Amino acid sequence: MSDFRPTKRTEIKRLPKRGHYDRETVYQILDSAIVCHVGFAVDVQPYVIPTNYGRAGDILYLHGSALSRMFQTLSKGVSVCVTVTHVDGLVLARAAFHHSVNYRSVVILGKARQIEDPREKMEALRLFTEHVVKGRWDEVRHPTDQELKVTTVLALPLEEVSAKVRTGGPIDDEADYALPVWAGVLPLAMVASDPEPDALRKSDPALPDYLRTYRR
Amino acid sequence: MSDFRPTKRTEIKRLPKRGHYDRETVYQILDSAIVCHVGFAVDVQPYVIPTNYGRAGDILYLHGSALSRMFQTLSKGVSVCVTVTHVDGLVLARAAFHHSVNYRSVVILGKARQIEDPREKMEALRLFTEHVVKGRWDEVRHPTDQELKVTTVLALPLEEVSAKVRTGGPIDDEADYALPVWAGVLPLAMVASDPEPDALRKSDPALPDYLRTYRR
Repeated sequence: MSDFRPTKRTEIKRLPKRGHYDRETVYQILDSAIVCHVGFAVDVQPYVIPTNYGRAGDILYLHGSALSRMFQTLSKGVSVCVTVTHVDGLVLARAAFHHSVNYRSVVILGKARQIEDPREKMEALRLFTEHVVKGRWDEVRHPTDQELKVTTVLALPLEEVSAKVRTGGPIDDEADYALPVWAGVLPLAMVASDPEPDALRKSDPALPDYLRTYRR
Repeated sequence: MSDFRPTKRTEIKRLPKRGHYDRETVYQILDSAIVCHVGFAVDVQPYVIPTNYGRAGDILYLHGSALSRMFQTLSKGVSVCVTVTHVDGLVLARAAFHHSVNYRSVVILGKARQIEDPREKMEALRLFTEHVVKGRWDEVRHPTDQELKVTTVLALPLEEVSAKVRTGGPIDDEADYALPVWAGVLPLAMVASDPEPDALRKSDPALPDYLRTYRR
């Protein structure tokens, strides 16, 4: 797979070794997170809103109510930034100054285009469902025409994209290694606990395998 | 504690019952997350960048390298949006359309002011450290004058603020409750695993209690 080409706007200038532009890294970060944060401006005020997404190749799909301000704004083709972040651990150094976070993030800049074709819309909705729980789409009731109609689906091309990754332990100043302070990494991850069946259920289907073994 | 006053820009119009403006809810969401997403625009392009933060009363503090584009931009007092999001669970309905996510988020709009006073700066740095690992500040080496100098600290007042919270199980259409599809919630949380001591350590201080029992 080829790399994304860094632009003036996406090149990681400070700490350049944290910057990644290869599709493998970008796809892996995008495909393993649950929500993205979408940035857009109305007049001069930026807004940052968490939402779900899906990906197919070099297209990131967003969806939401046709009535939402965010989707009405983005449908006009304004500039948008979509950021996906994983927090992987706390990096605890001996000096307060050198504390850090292990993370993986992707930043996508561009303009989104509204999907009108019902087949492409349906395929995007499949992607959203499968993105969150792989295996779910084949079991659930699919969207009706009316449900499709009230849902706005946007496609954002992955063109101007960068990833940023920090891994590993703390980097302290030489003199500080002698300090009697515990230093290292506290790993963090999104973990699922036992699925909670719907209290309003009228039948009790077995728990699907894709939930039994769920992990991000 | 009094409530934040919703404005035209922060009032939750769709699904208004998910909107919260009380300080207790807002503080709890802010104080239990690790990173926020900061939105700002350069020309017409919005950027959304993950970063750490701390809070004291109705001030959110941000900090970063004085050389970073984000901090140079924000220092000018441009409009900013800071969003904090917790993903608490996947809401699995019988219909694809009714799938959702349980989450808690806070959106803060405003302008940040740069902190110049070294004592206020130092206090903000204490807040960052304590925000991520409560109990850590008293053990580690505190910032030097030079470290303070190369760190930009910004204060964003909590004035125009809203929280949005979804809890509970799926809400399906009446006819769909009969479908033989497992429905319910898969709870998700950020969980810490065993702390990993620094490979470069020169002594082996005991693991502090605040890491032994760490939770968000």
